[in-house]
Parts: sequence; C-alpha cells; structure tokens
Amino acid sequence: MKQHFADRLAAACKAKKNSLCVGLDPRWDLLPLDLRRRHQTGTLDGVAAAFEEFCLRVLDVVAGLVPVVKPQSAFFEACGPSGMLALQRVVEKARRLGLIVIVDSKRNDIATTATAYAEAVLGGVSVDGVRLPVWPGDAMTINPYLGRDAVEPFLTCARRDRGGVFVLVRTSNPGAGLFQDLRVASAGGSSKPLYQMVGESVAAWSEENLGECGFGDVGAVVGATHPDELPQLRRLLPRVPFLVPGYGAQGGSAADTAAAFRADGLGAIVNSSRGITASFTPEEKDWPAAVTAATTRAIKELKSATPMGNL
Amino acid sequence: MKQHFADRLAAACKAKKNSLCVGLDPRWDLLPLDLRRRHQTGTLDGVAAAFEEFCLRVLDVVAGLVPVVKPQSAFFEACGPSGMLALQRVVEKARRLGLIVIVDSKRNDIATTATAYAEAVLGGVSVDGVRLPVWPGDAMTINPYLGRDAVEPFLTCARRDRGGVFVLVRTSNPGAGLFQDLRVASAGGSSKPLYQMVGESVAAWSEENLGECGFGDVGAVVGATHPDELPQLRRLLPRVPFLVPGYGAQGGSAADTAAAFRADGLGAIVNSSRGITASFTPEEKDWPAAVTAATTRAIKELKSATPMGNL
Repeated sequence: MKQHFADRLAAACKAKKNSLCVGLDPRWDLLPLDLRRRHQTGTLDGVAAAFEEFCLRVLDVVAGLVPVVKPQSAFFEACGPSGMLALQRVVEKARRLGLIVIVDSKRNDIATTATAYAEAVLGGVSVDGVRLPVWPGDAMTINPYLGRDAVEPFLTCARRDRGGVFVLVRTSNPGAGLFQDLRVASAGGSSKPLYQMVGESVAAWSEENLGECGFGDVGAVVGATHPDELPQLRRLLPRVPFLVPGYGAQGGSAADTAAAFRADGLGAIVNSSRGITASFTPEEKDWPAAVTAATTRAIKELKSATPMGNL
Repeated sequence: MKQHFADRLAAACKAKKNSLCVGLDPRWDLLPLDLRRRHQTGTLDGVAAAFEEFCLRVLDVVAGLVPVVKPQSAFFEACGPSGMLALQRVVEKARRLGLIVIVDSKRNDIATTATAYAEAVLGGVSVDGVRLPVWPGDAMTINPYLGRDAVEPFLTCARRDRGGVFVLVRTSNPGAGLFQDLRVASAGGSSKPLYQMVGESVAAWSEENLGECGFGDVGAVVGATHPDELPQLRRLLPRVPFLVPGYGAQGGSAADTAAAFRADGLGAIVNSSRGITASFTPEEKDWPAAVTAATTRAIKELKSATPMGNL
C-alpha cells in the first residue's frame, strides 16, 4: 500500500536533499526557437505538441535533481483536447520518473461535481467498477471559497488514493488582498484576516490524517511574496505542508521562503516556474544545460538561505 | 460587431419569453440505458462519446425552448482528452443553435495563467497572431478568492470578445457559509458577510461596462437555496445579472428565485440541471419527450412564480 502523502513527499525531499518544485507552465513565446520551428503549424495541436516535447525534456533534465513538479493546467487547457492529452503524458512521465506531481488546476465545485474534478487527478474515474486514471497526479491545488462540503470530496478522493490536496490560502499576486486580507470578526471582539481563517480550516482538515513525519495530507498554498505572513502562518499551522509559489520570477527571494520550513527542512515545497523553464533565450541551442544550471542554482540558493539545507 | 453580453442575454430571454438555463452535467448513471449500451466499452472514450451524444440530443430538444445552456466542465474533464473534445463539440453546437453558452468551470488563477483560462473560453487563443477558439462560450464562471488582478484577465478577455463572466458570490451548497458567511469588518464599526463584500466588488466591475438593458457584463452566481439573501443581493447589486443555481433538484423552489429578477423579468437566469436532464428513468425510450416536458414544466412554474412571466 502507498505511504501517506506527506511521508512520500518527505522521503522524496530527503532523497533529493532539497524541496524545490519545478513548475511546468509552458508558454509558446518562451520555448526554444528550434523546438517552436518544428511545431509551427499555426494550430493548437502544434502548440500542444511543442508543450509536450518541451515539458518531457524538462522532466528528463530535472528528474534527477528535484523531488516535485507542478504542471499548470491552464496552459495545456488553452490548447484544447490535444493540450489535455499533452498534460496527461507529462503527468504520466513525471510519475514514471519517480517525481511527486502536483496538478495545479485550482479546481472547485460542489458535491458530485467536485468529486468528478477530484477523481480525475486523485485515484481515477470509475468505469464499470474499474478506476481509470485521467491526469494521475499525487496531489492537486484547490480553491476553498465554496466551503466545507465543496472541499470534502477532494479530501475523500485524496485519502482513498493516499494523495494530497493543496488549498489556496494566501496567493502570491499583488491583488490577492482584495478578499484574503479582509478582517474577519472572531471570538472576543478581535479580528483576523480571511486567509488566516482559511488557514485554520486547512489545519483542521490536515490534522485529521497526519503522516509519520508529522505533517498532514492537506497543504496550504502560501506565496513567498508576503514574507511577513509566512512565519505567522507556519506558527499557526505547524502540521500543514506549504506549497510556496512566488520565489524567483515573481519577486520572492530565497530568504523570504525560510519561515515556511520546519527546522529539519521539511514542511515546505518552494516552486519555481519561469526561473527554470525560461532560464535561457529562445535562440539558445543547449537550453537543457541552462535548465540544469538554473535548477542547481535555485537549489543551492534555497539550501543556503533556508532550513532546506538540513535535508 | 457583437452586442454587449447583457443585451444579447436579454434579447435571447425576450425571444424565448423565459430565462431558464439548462445545465448540461452528464452523469453516466443517469443516461438513458439505450444510449449507455451503445457506448459501453469500459473506456473513458466510451463515456465521453455517450456524454457527447446525450448532450447534443438535449440541445436539439431544448434549443427552441430556452435561451441559455450551461455545460459543466468537470464531468467532461473527468473523461480525459476525449471528454474535452466532447465539451468542445457541445459548446460549438449550442452556439450554432443560437443558444447563449455559459461554460461552468469556476476557473481562477493569476496573471498570464488566468489569461490562458479566460482566452480558452472568451475570444480564443492566439497562435501566430490568429485567435483560435478552444471552448468558445459566451460566458464562463470564475472564482473570486484570488482577488483583483486574478479577476481582471477574465474581464479583459470577456470585454474584448463581448462576452460575460459570472463570479461565484453565494453558492448553493449547504456548507457554503464556512467562509462566505464570515462577518467582515466594514467602515463605521459595522460588519457584513464576506459574500456581500464579494458582491460589491462584482457590482463595481459590472458597472464599468453596462449594456443598454441596464445590466453589466459581470454577473454573480447566487444560489436559490438562500432565498432570504437573494432580495438583499438584488437590492445591493441592481445592475448585476444573476445566475441562480439550486432550483429544483437542489431544493430551491421557483418562488425562491423570484427576488433575483428585475420587475420586467430581466436580470436573472435560473439554472436547472438534473431536474431536466435526469427527468426520466434510464429505461425510458422516449426520453427526449421527458426532457421537453420537464423543460416546459420548469418554464411554466418559473413564469407563474417570478417576474420571468413579464418577459
């Protein structure tokens, strides 16, 4: 039987001695020129084929270096059905290479609809009593706005499949505060920001199913672009694994992510997307070497500036 | 040039003399038995083909009766790439039949990622300077939790394409209140629920671009299962079109939706999914007749209990 998600994640981070997550957010304009030329048919199928080839090659490069990858569903979806097929192949190859795969799709809905989204990533969809994989990740991102019974189907599917869920808590975009920062009245006349209330629900869900490493299977997405909030959230949610976007291209520094970790270096995954997959000019022939160098550089930087160095 | 989204929606509702939206949420277990048998291959491709055939036939039945349909992305996605192809064909056929199509996918992300989600539905994705349609709806549902700059790319794409966006404000599920009902501190020491704050942002976005009918191109999803909140939201957001789920199978009555409308019958679309597309037993041979009857019945019920009767 598969190990608990948090333990699998911890083992993968220990094996690679880092917890960098490579975000696979393919963008046509940022692809190597050679690769673009071979797929330049003026069709979405051509774009999807280019995305697939690029991501599969990135996987070959980073699989030996990092424990986790995070394909961004939006860019594949924007290529239509052939893009979704490319996403499927990228997820499958990453799993075959032993990587932990977080499908970043920020899904949300209610009841059986949420179950449909959840099963597609976590555990597969049942046809004639047989579960068939669709986009078979280890975990997925979800949006909490719809509340308790909208989150629960994702937890149910994750637990049946020994997978994980990362709930948006504090996102890394400049305008995140419009709702996330609203002050919510709490007991005793005090108040706290909405994202903290969401974080507390995430903590309660995560505590329901802790792994041996001490972390639960429900994580929180907490942007590195709010460095003052990370230490506070880590204190409030000691057993919640954090997925930290915003490092690198979005402006967060390695040191900004330090507070996301437990002292032993577990408990946080730091994502870098463009910082790695767009670390070269399109003209660059040996772009895989640039991807290797950018990955190694990010790992080194994070290990020296955060508890990741203790892994 | 295309008309403003709210004016197109109003014209469609006036032409059909109702504002019922048929939700296309195909579920294998609820499909007609005959249809299932013909596609029973034990594969996701078989399920996708069954969903497609079923939805296309439903479209033929309802296109003359209602102004709007709302395919639910989750059920198509759960069939993998072939499901996404089915979704594409369903959206395309609905548009060809002159229906307004709301793609219900509750998408959300930041910056260029949000743009990728938005363009796929609203206006198409640019390849070599040519915009290619992906799932070419008239509008889509989005989740507001990520804030201002996460919503804006959807508005930009909607406005370029003269389409619309429906933002989740108050959802119809029993557990919706976990975050949506939190009391948020507002000016003057008073407080109001989070969903109202979200609603006020939606109103501000919608006012930026009003149609001749007086409604904007940014709508709000407001469940019929909270009938006491509908009149209050309609008062607070007089120019925001409402998409009202929860009528029928989810427990909301026709009368519960009445407050969503402006006195002339415009301003609200009431959705029914299972109440129409699962209005027959799987053994029923003439299930299209049952769909016609259920649609006609729902329209009659809504017209007698709400201002929809004034259309």
